Amino acid sequence: MISSTANSKVKRLTALVQKAKLRREEQLFVVEGVRMFREAPDSWIREVYVSETFLHRCGRECEHTFDPAIGEKLNQYRYEVLTDEVFRKVSDTQTPQGVLCVLAMPHYELSSTAGKADCAGIWQTDTGRPLLLVLLEDMQDPGNLGTILRAGEGAGIDGVIMTRRTVDIFNPKVIRATMGSIYRVPFWVVDDLGGAIGFLKNKGIQVYAAQMDGSVDYDEPDYTRPAAFLIGNEGNGLLPATAAQASQYIKIPMAGQVESLNAAAAAAILMYEAARQRRKQ
Amino acid sequence: MISSTANSKVKRLTALVQKAKLRREEQLFVVEGVRMFREAPDSWIREVYVSETFLHRCGRECEHTFDPAIGEKLNQYRYEVLTDEVFRKVSDTQTPQGVLCVLAMPHYELSSTAGKADCAGIWQTDTGRPLLLVLLEDMQDPGNLGTILRAGEGAGIDGVIMTRRTVDIFNPKVIRATMGSIYRVPFWVVDDLGGAIGFLKNKGIQVYAAQMDGSVDYDEPDYTRPAAFLIGNEGNGLLPATAAQASQYIKIPMAGQVESLNAAAAAAILMYEAARQRRKQ
Repeated sequence: MISSTANSKVKRLTALVQKAKLRREEQLFVVEGVRMFREAPDSWIREVYVSETFLHRCGRECEHTFDPAIGEKLNQYRYEVLTDEVFRKVSDTQTPQGVLCVLAMPHYELSSTAGKADCAGIWQTDTGRPLLLVLLEDMQDPGNLGTILRAGEGAGIDGVIMTRRTVDIFNPKVIRATMGSIYRVPFWVVDDLGGAIGFLKNKGIQVYAAQMDGSVDYDEPDYTRPAAFLIGNEGNGLLPATAAQASQYIKIPMAGQVESLNAAAAAAILMYEAARQRRKQ
Repeated sequence: MISSTANSKVKRLTALVQKAKLRREEQLFVVEGVRMFREAPDSWIREVYVSETFLHRCGRECEHTFDPAIGEKLNQYRYEVLTDEVFRKVSDTQTPQGVLCVLAMPHYELSSTAGKADCAGIWQTDTGRPLLLVLLEDMQDPGNLGTILRAGEGAGIDGVIMTRRTVDIFNPKVIRATMGSIYRVPFWVVDDLGGAIGFLKNKGIQVYAAQMDGSVDYDEPDYTRPAAFLIGNEGNGLLPATAAQASQYIKIPMAGQVESLNAAAAAAILMYEAARQRRKQ
């Protein structure tokens, strides 16, 4: 059992929780909590850490675990035990649940997710549905990014493309807000968002930029065809040069004196409008 | 100029920022930042505080203000000047903009907002539109509540009814997330949400409970008639006894393994579906 925060493993773990640069270098990230452990793909798991109390409730020592599935999963891995105090110091949450994993970062191929064109030249996913993507430019709030992945999984999107200046998707606050969707929604970090937009348009995917001065209401376009929503930074919206590359500007009508919606709320409305149209087909 | 945090005015201001109980007792709350000051209804403003730096940029002393409207508004009030250091300590934000107001809490009459029944017995607002309300049970996240007010104003709702155990709407994090909508969206805190639901149903307003086991998809009902959306706590959803009082259960369809959406994202989707139907009429 590790009882000191000076322990080298604990120091590295804390650094992985806090430092995006180290996560990038090691291609590792940290998830926390029972749910995130339970849903973690086995092939991603590199290290597992539990608190003393968690182990008493759930580990090998205990015959009657509070959640047998968790106990079974835990027993598949070598795990390190931290004292409750050390665990609290490593944890990013106020009331840690007592389990924490180091995971390998996933890597997705845009071309394989995107599937291929059907005989009519319309890009379909492997499941035969027309593609639905979200493109984010420099989004800064971890809660917004996490919420977009979560709502995006619910709406059935095929992935999220985001700029390098977007908040790190492996930030613990983002991961927590995804509620597990980070395991299931593919994502790509790109240096050149304009290039990505061009790539998608070349594939026949319409790219809709959410803009205050959009020329049509967001529910006018036909999203039953392959589509991508382009959403800008919380404070400044899309850069003009980025917006200019979109196929069409769409706007979410605003009553009252509202100038814009919270970025995650806007994304949820757009993604679910596409999902609604596709259900109605 | 106040240069000490031991100053009694500063102590009271800090307490108003931090303590919901004191805010309730005094029926006052605090807003921060240029935008919140600019949009604050004059009749609500009780006290104004600025930082030294803000005053130099914008106050009486300065001929060329960075925003003439702010300078003019400031000059309508007696204001106290705090040193930048004291201002930073009072402020709830990491990079304070230098202006802060104490406001009187608004009080709305549900019956007057709700308007009256038309000749067909359908409740209309004063503007002749059918009522659209949101009911929140014990929502805990300040960002969610603020985002719901903001998206709600955009969608044209007539107000938000919330339980006493909902996060305090005058919490600085809620206010910041409203982006000014707190000034324009009426709200009511109720002890008896069931009673409020009964009241609305008696007025012919359909109350739709957002539930995972909803019997119809959220886009099936006709929201061009008077409607209210009932949304539960982030972790637990609606209490069964509360949900049971709704007119109908609706669900937001989920792809993947998503069990529920973020509460503010769900609310935004529902409110904008109502707004969409009303635009299409």
